[in-house]
Amino acid sequence: MATLIRNGTLLTATDRYEADVSIEDGVIRNIGRDLPVAPEDEVIDATGRWVLPGAVDVHTHLDMPFMGTVSADDFFTGTRAAAAGGTTTVVDFAIAPRHGDYEQTLDAWHARAEGKAVIDYGFHMGVTWFGTPEAETGLRRCVARGVTSFKCFMAYKGTLSIDDGEMFGLLALSRDLGATVSVHAENGSIVEALVARHRAAGHTDPVWHARSRPSTLEGEATSRAIVIARQAGAPLYIVHLTCAEALEAVRRARAAGQEVHAETCPQYLMFTDEVYERPDFEGAKWVMSPPIRPAGHPEALWAGLADGTLEVVATDHCPFQFATQKVMGKHDFSLIPNGAPGVGDRMAVLYHYGVKTGRIDVHRWIDTCSTRPARLFGLHPQKGTLAVGSDGDVVVFDPKATFTFGTAWSEHAVDYSLYEGMPGSGAFDVVLSRGQVVWERGTFRGRAGAGRFLHRFPGRTPFPE
Amino acid sequence: MATLIRNGTLLTATDRYEADVSIEDGVIRNIGRDLPVAPEDEVIDATGRWVLPGAVDVHTHLDMPFMGTVSADDFFTGTRAAAAGGTTTVVDFAIAPRHGDYEQTLDAWHARAEGKAVIDYGFHMGVTWFGTPEAETGLRRCVARGVTSFKCFMAYKGTLSIDDGEMFGLLALSRDLGATVSVHAENGSIVEALVARHRAAGHTDPVWHARSRPSTLEGEATSRAIVIARQAGAPLYIVHLTCAEALEAVRRARAAGQEVHAETCPQYLMFTDEVYERPDFEGAKWVMSPPIRPAGHPEALWAGLADGTLEVVATDHCPFQFATQKVMGKHDFSLIPNGAPGVGDRMAVLYHYGVKTGRIDVHRWIDTCSTRPARLFGLHPQKGTLAVGSDGDVVVFDPKATFTFGTAWSEHAVDYSLYEGMPGSGAFDVVLSRGQVVWERGTFRGRAGAGRFLHRFPGRTPFPE
Amino acid sequence: MATLIRNGTLLTATDRYEADVSIEDGVIRNIGRDLPVAPEDEVIDATGRWVLPGAVDVHTHLDMPFMGTVSADDFFTGTRAAAAGGTTTVVDFAIAPRHGDYEQTLDAWHARAEGKAVIDYGFHMGVTWFGTPEAETGLRRCVARGVTSFKCFMAYKGTLSIDDGEMFGLLALSRDLGATVSVHAENGSIVEALVARHRAAGHTDPVWHARSRPSTLEGEATSRAIVIARQAGAPLYIVHLTCAEALEAVRRARAAGQEVHAETCPQYLMFTDEVYERPDFEGAKWVMSPPIRPAGHPEALWAGLADGTLEVVATDHCPFQFATQKVMGKHDFSLIPNGAPGVGDRMAVLYHYGVKTGRIDVHRWIDTCSTRPARLFGLHPQKGTLAVGSDGDVVVFDPKATFTFGTAWSEHAVDYSLYEGMPGSGAFDVVLSRGQVVWERGTFRGRAGAGRFLHRFPGRTPFPE
Amino acid sequence: MATLIRNGTLLTATDRYEADVSIEDGVIRNIGRDLPVAPEDEVIDATGRWVLPGAVDVHTHLDMPFMGTVSADDFFTGTRAAAAGGTTTVVDFAIAPRHGDYEQTLDAWHARAEGKAVIDYGFHMGVTWFGTPEAETGLRRCVARGVTSFKCFMAYKGTLSIDDGEMFGLLALSRDLGATVSVHAENGSIVEALVARHRAAGHTDPVWHARSRPSTLEGEATSRAIVIARQAGAPLYIVHLTCAEALEAVRRARAAGQEVHAETCPQYLMFTDEVYERPDFEGAKWVMSPPIRPAGHPEALWAGLADGTLEVVATDHCPFQFATQKVMGKHDFSLIPNGAPGVGDRMAVLYHYGVKTGRIDVHRWIDTCSTRPARLFGLHPQKGTLAVGSDGDVVVFDPKATFTFGTAWSEHAVDYSLYEGMPGSGAFDVVLSRGQVVWERGTFRGRAGAGRFLHRFPGRTPFPE
Repeated sequence: MATLIRNGTLLTATDRYEADVSIEDGVIRNIGRDLPVAPEDEVIDATGRWVLPGAVDVHTHLDMPFMGTVSADDFFTGTRAAAAGGTTTVVDFAIAPRHGDYEQTLDAWHARAEGKAVIDYGFHMGVTWFGTPEAETGLRRCVARGVTSFKCFMAYKGTLSIDDGEMFGLLALSRDLGATVSVHAENGSIVEALVARHRAAGHTDPVWHARSRPSTLEGEATSRAIVIARQAGAPLYIVHLTCAEALEAVRRARAAGQEVHAETCPQYLMFTDEVYERPDFEGAKWVMSPPIRPAGHPEALWAGLADGTLEVVATDHCPFQFATQKVMGKHDFSLIPNGAPGVGDRMAVLYHYGVKTGRIDVHRWIDTCSTRPARLFGLHPQKGTLAVGSDGDVVVFDPKATFTFGTAWSEHAVDYSLYEGMPGSGAFDVVLSRGQVVWERGTFRGRAGAGRFLHRFPGRTPFPE
Repeated sequence: MATLIRNGTLLTATDRYEADVSIEDGVIRNIGRDLPVAPEDEVIDATGRWVLPGAVDVHTHLDMPFMGTVSADDFFTGTRAAAAGGTTTVVDFAIAPRHGDYEQTLDAWHARAEGKAVIDYGFHMGVTWFGTPEAETGLRRCVARGVTSFKCFMAYKGTLSIDDGEMFGLLALSRDLGATVSVHAENGSIVEALVARHRAAGHTDPVWHARSRPSTLEGEATSRAIVIARQAGAPLYIVHLTCAEALEAVRRARAAGQEVHAETCPQYLMFTDEVYERPDFEGAKWVMSPPIRPAGHPEALWAGLADGTLEVVATDHCPFQFATQKVMGKHDFSLIPNGAPGVGDRMAVLYHYGVKTGRIDVHRWIDTCSTRPARLFGLHPQKGTLAVGSDGDVVVFDPKATFTFGTAWSEHAVDYSLYEGMPGSGAFDVVLSRGQVVWERGTFRGRAGAGRFLHRFPGRTPFPE
Repeated sequence: MATLIRNGTLLTATDRYEADVSIEDGVIRNIGRDLPVAPEDEVIDATGRWVLPGAVDVHTHLDMPFMGTVSADDFFTGTRAAAAGGTTTVVDFAIAPRHGDYEQTLDAWHARAEGKAVIDYGFHMGVTWFGTPEAETGLRRCVARGVTSFKCFMAYKGTLSIDDGEMFGLLALSRDLGATVSVHAENGSIVEALVARHRAAGHTDPVWHARSRPSTLEGEATSRAIVIARQAGAPLYIVHLTCAEALEAVRRARAAGQEVHAETCPQYLMFTDEVYERPDFEGAKWVMSPPIRPAGHPEALWAGLADGTLEVVATDHCPFQFATQKVMGKHDFSLIPNGAPGVGDRMAVLYHYGVKTGRIDVHRWIDTCSTRPARLFGLHPQKGTLAVGSDGDVVVFDPKATFTFGTAWSEHAVDYSLYEGMPGSGAFDVVLSRGQVVWERGTFRGRAGAGRFLHRFPGRTPFPE
Repeated sequence: MATLIRNGTLLTATDRYEADVSIEDGVIRNIGRDLPVAPEDEVIDATGRWVLPGAVDVHTHLDMPFMGTVSADDFFTGTRAAAAGGTTTVVDFAIAPRHGDYEQTLDAWHARAEGKAVIDYGFHMGVTWFGTPEAETGLRRCVARGVTSFKCFMAYKGTLSIDDGEMFGLLALSRDLGATVSVHAENGSIVEALVARHRAAGHTDPVWHARSRPSTLEGEATSRAIVIARQAGAPLYIVHLTCAEALEAVRRARAAGQEVHAETCPQYLMFTDEVYERPDFEGAKWVMSPPIRPAGHPEALWAGLADGTLEVVATDHCPFQFATQKVMGKHDFSLIPNGAPGVGDRMAVLYHYGVKTGRIDVHRWIDTCSTRPARLFGLHPQKGTLAVGSDGDVVVFDPKATFTFGTAWSEHAVDYSLYEGMPGSGAFDVVLSRGQVVWERGTFRGRAGAGRFLHRFPGRTPFPE
């Protein structure tokens, strides 16, 4: 029995053409004109619609303990919301406590995901300490267990951050292991000093979160991380890049022939820091790190997407309930849990505000949201494209539909949306994960636990070798 | 009857996977696993080999009158050599004489190509005058006849060049017509002054060609063209970019959100200006405009290919016999016909010196040599990719073969090769044009006149619309 | 008999100290504490005030025929106004008509100045044609007659401008002669195209003057001039630099070790292009080329003054009566005479809005308005500083006085001021030219014809040699 | 009784003129033509020679404990050598041990200098810890005692360095106190990692010192310091800048309007890292931090001096005997005491290799070596210029003399010279400190203890206020 998607317009990072797609055993078997249909086949009519690869979100924080609470979406609600928004793969961050055992951390995250995820998933390991044989052994075990990407923090001094020398060591080890290092680039030491200064001055509102983390501090840390990676001879991946300074640092490094990759998130493209001025503690909804930036930065980011400096759009999905969690920082901005929902919004936001406005074309949309992240994190060609042999992660998309963003539209298990009331377009009519329909015209048809862990393999293997 | 290419590894600008490809009526009909074979089908076994889209060269000068002589390859020998090197589409330059009729020029180029070309071809129109109703009418007629790209020259003062105001007008008109403007960016006024100065000083050797055209003059003209295009609100395409200064100008414009595209050529990636010091007038082989650059520039160009600033690799194929044509400038560098062969070398040079050295990956190779030029000049998805519905322009490529570059290897009708004696790898085992085998294991199996004119359509139509 | 200035605070580009100054035979003879006084000496008490070198304005257009009229200040009213504002030297532009004789042009300007100037003056020669033996001979004669600086125009296509090749030739000749080339850097070809486009669209208001000359066109021309000067191996001086793009081009050239100098004018530091929106044709008062720039550019210029990229502040003083001359372009912005008054305002504007606001310090004020221009144009140490042996061009300045800018304050012979109604501070209590009091507490005490022509000598002689 | 210097050519940062100078009570009283001579006056004939302000070296380490030994020049030999080379003021670094008392440190340095110095001197305080009330109190006391400049280290991790947050705090405090912060900008954390890596690999030669401290790490730290200073709203002074990356960071900051100052040293202008390849451990002579840089960097620094980005040339004079001190690191590059002699060489090196080659003019020489450092550290106009009221620190310099650099020429108490055998020119014929001859034609005529401590005053007082 096969699944046959007929008469759609296939779109990939490169191509656009009309064809049928057949999926067997969860894998794309055939792409062609007028493919034959067997009686037992499930046929999906895509006439007048687009057929896209299921999208890949390489930056989520599901069910994550943070700042004294836990992010609001677990692996069931979070992956379900992802699928509803056209995303069929997530790579989530397992984050070890300082001096915590890396393998045990990985076990804990497996326990969080198993039996819950409705789409396939992988893990990055958050590296919060380094420099001892125990740390190195733990990270080598992670790689052996299919976790080939590490993340380190230059922010969150005193809890998550490692210092420059540790980052250098991690990069050098990762290069030898064929693993990739991601970095959260903000100068945590100065952030801490500014937070202290602002708190001492009696400032409590959410806007002071942003004022404690100016873009120059992200630009600085990004530049520094690039220099350290160059010394270590290792590739580098910058997560959630938000500002012109950091963007330019990446661009210059690439122009000099260094391998640096960068990701941004929809919220940094869509908002300016005026959101923090909203009354009634509303600004807290946008409290995340790095924060939303002043006018000018979003334009720079759009240009960076168009010129290829920004290769990936992910979400940093990390939702907290406004009513019960964000409010923990009502009287002290530094206690507001950092993070916001987005895993289900990404594809639609980029389509309506990127593709339809002409800022990026459809190919760039698919490349940044699906193909490129899959390739950079060792998931391609299994994920992120439509090709013979790839997993049957497919989205039938209606480009003409319209809707309104908000909690009524998205499937996140959280009580607010960053995009509440904003117009959107496009509909994810049918979403398949390995050939199984997960979502169909507004109805969840998937199954908790159907998602599989994606064991990735080390090795930077620029084909051919 | 179909042609079936079996068991190969398909490569596109995005993907790599194993599949069979079937071609019917000159068009790809099906891509899949274990496609059925009919008895009458022609079957090509691609086991162990790669299946690539036929490459697209958007910068050739076949049978072109220039500097008192005519380029050595006509549309038969030139397109045959292209096919032998894996290229199945060329876009050649029809160049009007100053104040010459644009439609008559187009007629003349059609006459040169018809009955000769063995693969499909298109034309750009070289715009050497502008500003009168006659010029505008002529260019509008070109667009109506399928020539939707114009080229202008900032170099060749007094013969081909137009001035800044004319370029502005051409760009504004082209924007309205949905046509693309390419530019040869060198400051012709200063080049002329330097040539005069060097000749007056008694300098005659080929090296003075290069010294009359320093990279700063290309950087200057490139920056100027970008500013003019911005004023006109028109996209811009820079041909044969050779140097770090021009590259940086393009990068900055793209970072600022301007639509600027740039092409380089293999010779600028492969050589430094030491070639001009070779004895016995050998340097004349590399006399072209812009010239080969000093050390440092090639590295910058490779980085520009890797970071996406350079989107296209074309050839500027314009060969002149060393023994009988280049020698016209034996005693005066300014009389050496400008140009060199390359249409058949490009794919192999980029594979051996780009892909195999790790400077670019296979996807970038295909993108820059095939997919991107096809897209930028309105030929995609008909040309430049492997997708259902695309023309059956396909190359079966053996990545493991090795050979030596030189006149014995290439099929150009000219008595020298820029790459003589240099090692190469890869073999274009079978080359198909619209499903017909044109070249097979060293033997020409095509036919003069089989190539068709590619009528292109105006309109910058960023899908969807 | 000597003139003795007692008890003032002397300020130079480097120093600040308290001392007396004695002047004999028009030249500073002694600087010291408690200098002896002879009965016949004229004593000026400078207690509580500053003693400055008389300022040097190297960019004026007095009594100049332009755009069908003549600038409103002649050498008497213009130099008198200069002196009233603390300026004791001007270098004015003699501008040859296209193909006009350079020596005759110089004769004509001498005739304009002689018997009228109240302070010393020199000439630059405006070079509007080049490339013939006649042109070269004429320019050599200018140098022999004490005019060692040339100016060329990239703007004013068809009347004043020369092309890139001519500029290259002029620079090469000037390098050999030890003369300096200045350039008005705007892309005249594109300006002309934009003017034509805007006029064709029926736009007539002054604001369209600015919209026809966007800053990108100045940035482009500045970059181009720098490249040409580098090729010619000659130093370059950029007049009236107004925008961030041009500033950055100069900064980069200097960082690369090229000798490039740049001047701005007070109006570009003080205003934004909102002035063109003023009702009742008021915007015409600011119609000059280049035009006043959008917000952001002035800040960049102030930073350029502070970091030394901008070495000179001159005025481009070229006044036209609002009521009778500016009005010529009432119905066509392209007919408004380009230019504005400023020779008498410069020192006061820079003091109030630069020094007192902390943007520059007093030394930079003196350096940019006096010492540096004198040095760059071969007038130092005779002019532009307070040193033993220098001309007794001295200003006794009261830093605490306040006033209101406007026609009632300035001495220009024109019916408007750019700064009408704006607050100012400082008073030029006594102004001496070669030891003679020219201006004293609001009263003119000079004499028409007292000013002498400053014969300058060729040779870039970086001391020592 | 006065000292009269007659008939010389006076040179300052701005001016050049012929005059006599009279000094009374240690202070310049009169500058003029044909000054009267009293019988008791000491007359120095400067005919045919230049009269310069005594130079100011704001970066010395005399008698300093470091890396298990003590620098070879004490305040007697060091200041005597300074005077012999035309320098009449030094500002030396008092460096507190980590958590050491700042006032006691200052006491210790006073004890080192008193009774020994032959010229005037000041102190900077090296800040190696911060963040406690004790630290702040100590620094406030330093300011009260005339030490208004602090230095911190981003290098020397674990001993001298402070972290980013501490630097931010120091800058904020200094801004409030009117003190200046200097920074040694290298990323100590990565240096430490590279040193460990190289040592672990068995590398022992001096060249590995340089390889452990690549220029990118200085560029990174410089950029970071600039960002931190911007956040703190404080001016910043970069000591011993050596490389193109750091230079460009400073240039960009200044272009953006930030107050950043930078100093380089003669050795970074004069040598490339080939010195580390010299046999017989010779490379150890150039072991200092930052190290000598690869080719290209010196050219960038010369351009930075010419364009004003580099405002100061100091020496970082910190000599160690080759035979007995440098040799401590014979078998381990990390144990070689960091530092080299230079206080007596600076003026002559810059004259011969800067002024005479045309890279800088005489005014820039005096400005960078005397006037600007004096102004930036609160010593001007007392020191660093020739003006009425300034201290009588004067040098009579013969610009035509020639000599050979080396230990036989310089007066340093150390057994090697960086410039051994290199040609030089100029002679410091007579050197006066506050009117007293300290050095005369090769003979020391000064007195240990004649030098006075220069009590400096806080407050950034851009005149006027």
